[in-house]
Amino acid sequence: MNIHDLDTPTVLVDIDTLGRNLGGMAGYCRVHNLTLRPHTKTHKIPQIARLQMQYGAPGITVAKLGEAEVMADAGINDILIVYPLWGEKKWMRLTELAKRVRISVAMDSLQVAAGISRAARLAGVEVGIRLEFDTGLHRCGLSANEESIAIAKKIIALPNLRWEGISLYPGHIMGNREIREHDIPVENAKLDRLYALFDLAGIPYPVVSGGNTPAAFQSHRFHGVTEIRPGTYIFNDRNTVDAESATYADCAVTVLATVVSTSVQGNAVIDAGSKTLSADTLLSGERKHFGYVQGRPELILHDLSEEHGHLIVPGDSHVEVGNLLRIIPNHVCPCINLHDHVFIVSGEKVVDHWSVAARGKVT
Amino acid sequence: MNIHDLDTPTVLVDIDTLGRNLGGMAGYCRVHNLTLRPHTKTHKIPQIARLQMQYGAPGITVAKLGEAEVMADAGINDILIVYPLWGEKKWMRLTELAKRVRISVAMDSLQVAAGISRAARLAGVEVGIRLEFDTGLHRCGLSANEESIAIAKKIIALPNLRWEGISLYPGHIMGNREIREHDIPVENAKLDRLYALFDLAGIPYPVVSGGNTPAAFQSHRFHGVTEIRPGTYIFNDRNTVDAESATYADCAVTVLATVVSTSVQGNAVIDAGSKTLSADTLLSGERKHFGYVQGRPELILHDLSEEHGHLIVPGDSHVEVGNLLRIIPNHVCPCINLHDHVFIVSGEKVVDHWSVAARGKVT
Repeated sequence: MNIHDLDTPTVLVDIDTLGRNLGGMAGYCRVHNLTLRPHTKTHKIPQIARLQMQYGAPGITVAKLGEAEVMADAGINDILIVYPLWGEKKWMRLTELAKRVRISVAMDSLQVAAGISRAARLAGVEVGIRLEFDTGLHRCGLSANEESIAIAKKIIALPNLRWEGISLYPGHIMGNREIREHDIPVENAKLDRLYALFDLAGIPYPVVSGGNTPAAFQSHRFHGVTEIRPGTYIFNDRNTVDAESATYADCAVTVLATVVSTSVQGNAVIDAGSKTLSADTLLSGERKHFGYVQGRPELILHDLSEEHGHLIVPGDSHVEVGNLLRIIPNHVCPCINLHDHVFIVSGEKVVDHWSVAARGKVT
Repeated sequence: MNIHDLDTPTVLVDIDTLGRNLGGMAGYCRVHNLTLRPHTKTHKIPQIARLQMQYGAPGITVAKLGEAEVMADAGINDILIVYPLWGEKKWMRLTELAKRVRISVAMDSLQVAAGISRAARLAGVEVGIRLEFDTGLHRCGLSANEESIAIAKKIIALPNLRWEGISLYPGHIMGNREIREHDIPVENAKLDRLYALFDLAGIPYPVVSGGNTPAAFQSHRFHGVTEIRPGTYIFNDRNTVDAESATYADCAVTVLATVVSTSVQGNAVIDAGSKTLSADTLLSGERKHFGYVQGRPELILHDLSEEHGHLIVPGDSHVEVGNLLRIIPNHVCPCINLHDHVFIVSGEKVVDHWSVAARGKVT
């Protein structure tokens, strides 16, 4: 089957580009002795999680318990949930999961740790624990100070928890372009200060887990990091290209769309809007446009309605109703999360069809 | 069951507010002798479509063929697809559908009409046809000129099509606030010019279908409109409130979320991010913030990660890990489309649980 035989809009994953991205990140991590624990929120597809483990990942990362349940059902046996899980319902689901796979959680409060400990003791299981520190994104995470170390001590003393170490999310460092301008010594000074507090208290931290996609290939330059959790690298998108962390040739996901209207002069409409591509704006710069038209850079996807993509067609260009276009989305993670399945392609040949099994697992 | 017993994040639909919204729009349309053909893209829930028909709608509107298939399966027997359907696969699905329900399509090109006509003749069915005109949004739609009337004539002459009339989408008129400032005589002059062209050509147009939610209650002021297709009115959202077309008391949908982190001073994180609320920015004004915290207007939802909602908590306010909050989303349509099901509530009492059956039907 060829992509021209598919109904549109639909998501295509180029298996050759995916393979290069898999191998590239795995190779980088091997060379620098970093553990790669890929964040599967990007794809939510068990087949891709299994490929990531075949390429050397000892386990995966997820954001939600529901994602962990899907991945465990698919045979993934080592899962980190980098999210502070709150509430009896979630703690019971977590300990059920811990009965069948190795499971760890990152959190930033004694309350969350105490809830998990209590549930784990009742269930007779052990849950791995990492403590989240804020190094500049100001989203979650404790500050590097003595108060936080006191909390760490209390958490480590709780029963049925397996202390693993420190969790970071350097989401404030947005990519190669920014790293060139970014003061790495400043970041390292923050990390050194954090480690000194732990050392002083005599608390070991076997794992220091960091790393987002845009800055992933710079991870070796940050002091003490032992593990990274990039997600987007597996597919890449317009954001990672904009951050100079990838090129359009590294983008494995395109949305196949059809031109459905050319009746307004200088414009065209494709059948992919915000319910197909997501409404995410570009993370940097002028935040303009909603995707990149592969092979047709003159076509500007300047706006999205829910089911309409609005193209500006310059005077020297031409599109017709029925034309197929392939769009690289701004942000691939929320885009995939809108779809029940993806088609696996090699060039224009359709080779497989995978379910986005963890799609919509919000709890 | 009470909302405090639910796992979060999840979507709550207040059935009392929904009832008022249903009745309010139905009453307005009855008084002004307008046909109400609600757009079900907002909810994608057959139970709500059936309620809309019980309140007087002769049929519904959808954007996608896949939505029409779900609604037909649920017993809805009169469906308008306001979308230019292109391609043999879609035309075959359309004619299959036309064998079991009354179906109409709005489009703006002879190519689309010819494809549907050919497929309908082969299948031995009839498909209703409306011709889309652009009155200012510049998205889809023909211009009001003689060339367009020539196209209309050709379309009407095609076999197995049932000519119904004119389709408009006044999406450039954004609500009561804008209508106060908007030049209604200018819009009416455009409409009159369009009708004059049809009259001159001797082409009847029994249906003139227009109407979005923000301007819905002003529809009687626009010349010649016989039918409106509002969607969002059933739930309302921060956009319709911002457009002064509703108040927060008219918003039937809230996302129930839990505070999961307060470790960063002056901030808090809830477990609802862009994969729960959608990343849609506000349509007007400064386009700031990602939702309204019901009953806690001092809490500002200033940013979203995929699974984190970032709240600013002013000094004189306080939230704790575990607190439940109810968020009115910016744009309810893409929010609902992220969820497999919604809980129906009356106040804090959970009374039912409905599937978002047409969620993710992109083709």
